[in-house]
Amino acid sequence: MSVPGEVNGGFATGDLIHLNGNSLGPPRTDLLDRLGTVVSEQWARGQVRAWFRDGWLDLPRTVGDKLSPLLGAAPGQVVVAGDTTSTTLFNALVAACRLRDRPVVLVEGDAFPTDLYLAASVARLLGRELVVESRDGFDAYLGEHGDRVAVALAAPVDFRTGRRRDIGSTTALCHAVGALSVWDLCHAAGVLPTNLDTNNVDLAIGCGYKYLGGGPGAPAFLYVAERWQSEVDFPLAGWHGHAEPFAMTPDFVPATGIDRGRNGTPPLLSLVALDHALDPLVAVGIDELHRRAKALGEAFLDALRPDVEVVSPRDPDQRGGHLALRVPDADAVEHGLAERNVLVDARPPDLIRVAFAPLYVTPEHVRRAAEAIHSVLSPPN
Amino acid sequence: MSVPGEVNGGFATGDLIHLNGNSLGPPRTDLLDRLGTVVSEQWARGQVRAWFRDGWLDLPRTVGDKLSPLLGAAPGQVVVAGDTTSTTLFNALVAACRLRDRPVVLVEGDAFPTDLYLAASVARLLGRELVVESRDGFDAYLGEHGDRVAVALAAPVDFRTGRRRDIGSTTALCHAVGALSVWDLCHAAGVLPTNLDTNNVDLAIGCGYKYLGGGPGAPAFLYVAERWQSEVDFPLAGWHGHAEPFAMTPDFVPATGIDRGRNGTPPLLSLVALDHALDPLVAVGIDELHRRAKALGEAFLDALRPDVEVVSPRDPDQRGGHLALRVPDADAVEHGLAERNVLVDARPPDLIRVAFAPLYVTPEHVRRAAEAIHSVLSPPN
Repeated sequence: MSVPGEVNGGFATGDLIHLNGNSLGPPRTDLLDRLGTVVSEQWARGQVRAWFRDGWLDLPRTVGDKLSPLLGAAPGQVVVAGDTTSTTLFNALVAACRLRDRPVVLVEGDAFPTDLYLAASVARLLGRELVVESRDGFDAYLGEHGDRVAVALAAPVDFRTGRRRDIGSTTALCHAVGALSVWDLCHAAGVLPTNLDTNNVDLAIGCGYKYLGGGPGAPAFLYVAERWQSEVDFPLAGWHGHAEPFAMTPDFVPATGIDRGRNGTPPLLSLVALDHALDPLVAVGIDELHRRAKALGEAFLDALRPDVEVVSPRDPDQRGGHLALRVPDADAVEHGLAERNVLVDARPPDLIRVAFAPLYVTPEHVRRAAEAIHSVLSPPN
Repeated sequence: MSVPGEVNGGFATGDLIHLNGNSLGPPRTDLLDRLGTVVSEQWARGQVRAWFRDGWLDLPRTVGDKLSPLLGAAPGQVVVAGDTTSTTLFNALVAACRLRDRPVVLVEGDAFPTDLYLAASVARLLGRELVVESRDGFDAYLGEHGDRVAVALAAPVDFRTGRRRDIGSTTALCHAVGALSVWDLCHAAGVLPTNLDTNNVDLAIGCGYKYLGGGPGAPAFLYVAERWQSEVDFPLAGWHGHAEPFAMTPDFVPATGIDRGRNGTPPLLSLVALDHALDPLVAVGIDELHRRAKALGEAFLDALRPDVEVVSPRDPDQRGGHLALRVPDADAVEHGLAERNVLVDARPPDLIRVAFAPLYVTPEHVRRAAEAIHSVLSPPN
């Protein structure tokens, strides 16, 4: 497989090799300029009027629309309400459950732990039953007890191994038994095509600070398929999700369209940073981002010594944007690599994850990273 | 009453008079330096390690502790989890209701509309009854049906009129009937002493972007009295609120202490801006801030023509940091004042609010603002 020779510049990577874009990538070099415009020109000069004059009030929707092509969503279905990923997942799960009067919330045991915590919390609040299954058990449960399932929560990329779950077929499996699907796209958005519309996804959420590059704790996004937007009923009924936010009526009247997914006043600086981060991703496009990430992954594997155990699928079409390697001591290897200016992510006790965010990782980087791994695993004499 | 002659500088006010610090004050002039440190030094150089090296991970608690003296709270009871005000109120209300197996959530009809929306949402989720009463009816309901009330939600400052509700006596009234109090401090924090500990408050929330100056959509804070911290049970069970966030266990084990109020990964840039905004407030102290705000309000009233109707209590000890004036057309007056570089806040149809945030409003400002109001209400020939 050919390896891309070019990389989009403009990232403040310093002398570091950033193979943890699945966790937090580097900032763009011009982020401070953008923040300066917001603080010094819009905020200081326009003050509260900037919410209207400078489009702040619309940002949750305009950032959502900017993000949409990366997710395979037509405009008007994605919003960045300004809450954390955990909160956004909570909101989506409650709303999805309310669309199906059935007893079970189904989730994979290998889901990111917060997904398990919030699914349990939602099940308890709504008097539903949380069913946690293995990867294969998840599909089997849908097959055998699907008529009991209100909502199935799944992720297209296993956060540990990178192994993919097909969005289209899983969603079809849910729909065949009358269940709704909620997708956690945290480890996919920005590196893997998710084709939410053509895959007939119901609701999805994802965080802004992994491959999307929005920076530490960037707010999460929410996708609501257009067909659900007039029925969906969110528990987080903040005033920005009201049909007339400034009417200040005593009763909540939900907005139409994706604005219904809005909540309180969003954390603007963090939202602007996410908005800024999306530009180069959108310019390249999700298919090309995915192609480059795959090529980088293959180049890394080509350079890796065969005795290093790769936990992820070897077929690049069976994994997301990262690879997991088994090592004797994940924390020690992570630290050893950091000393060599290679940033990876440790999953103790024995996994490190190596991610190929294609805007700031080069073929040269992945070759040097493989060498550094060899050096850390068997220090030269 | 004497008027303070000095004002703490360091705010990028431009040539504007900012009388809407109850909505969004101006940024500090050195905010971009602080953001630059975070983006260029901590994020770009430290990358994900900055969460540990540079204290990012502790910020929800350290910002909470920095804020505590302004609220009259001993350390370890305030956290800025990183969610919006609406979400934080939702989380607090559910948790408070779970502490009392009683049917009613009580709220004032004059509450900020989002408070009504979220109280209704929480009541519905938990199968409780929402009771909305007038200001006097609120106290009467507690007196007559107090044993039915799980949680009473109240605000120390009416967001329209500025009229105060006494935190101590209202909380005592709740406790006398076995109800819990949840306080919305949005229009009080940073300008009015709230003495949460001595007033025996149970839970409280407030936003970071009004008098606290954290900037557009700054994340909200949550206060949980120490005596409730081992019992309180939040629905937003994100991984940062886990006893061992990095253990990645499948079951949620809530953290001890105020960390239990944490949730997902917080929006760091907005959180840092709030942290930065608190320094000059804490340096002055809440009692002095309140003294200055009162003096500014009195100076404004002294300069105001007697024919302008003041809706707020004339006794400065009966109101918060703002005054409401009745005008023929609130939006028109707000715009007319903005053309004169005086920023106020319109509450259509007929109220404008004038806030006295004491760090960047001077006695000269309030005199000029009064003149501008006279000019707008009766344009000179």
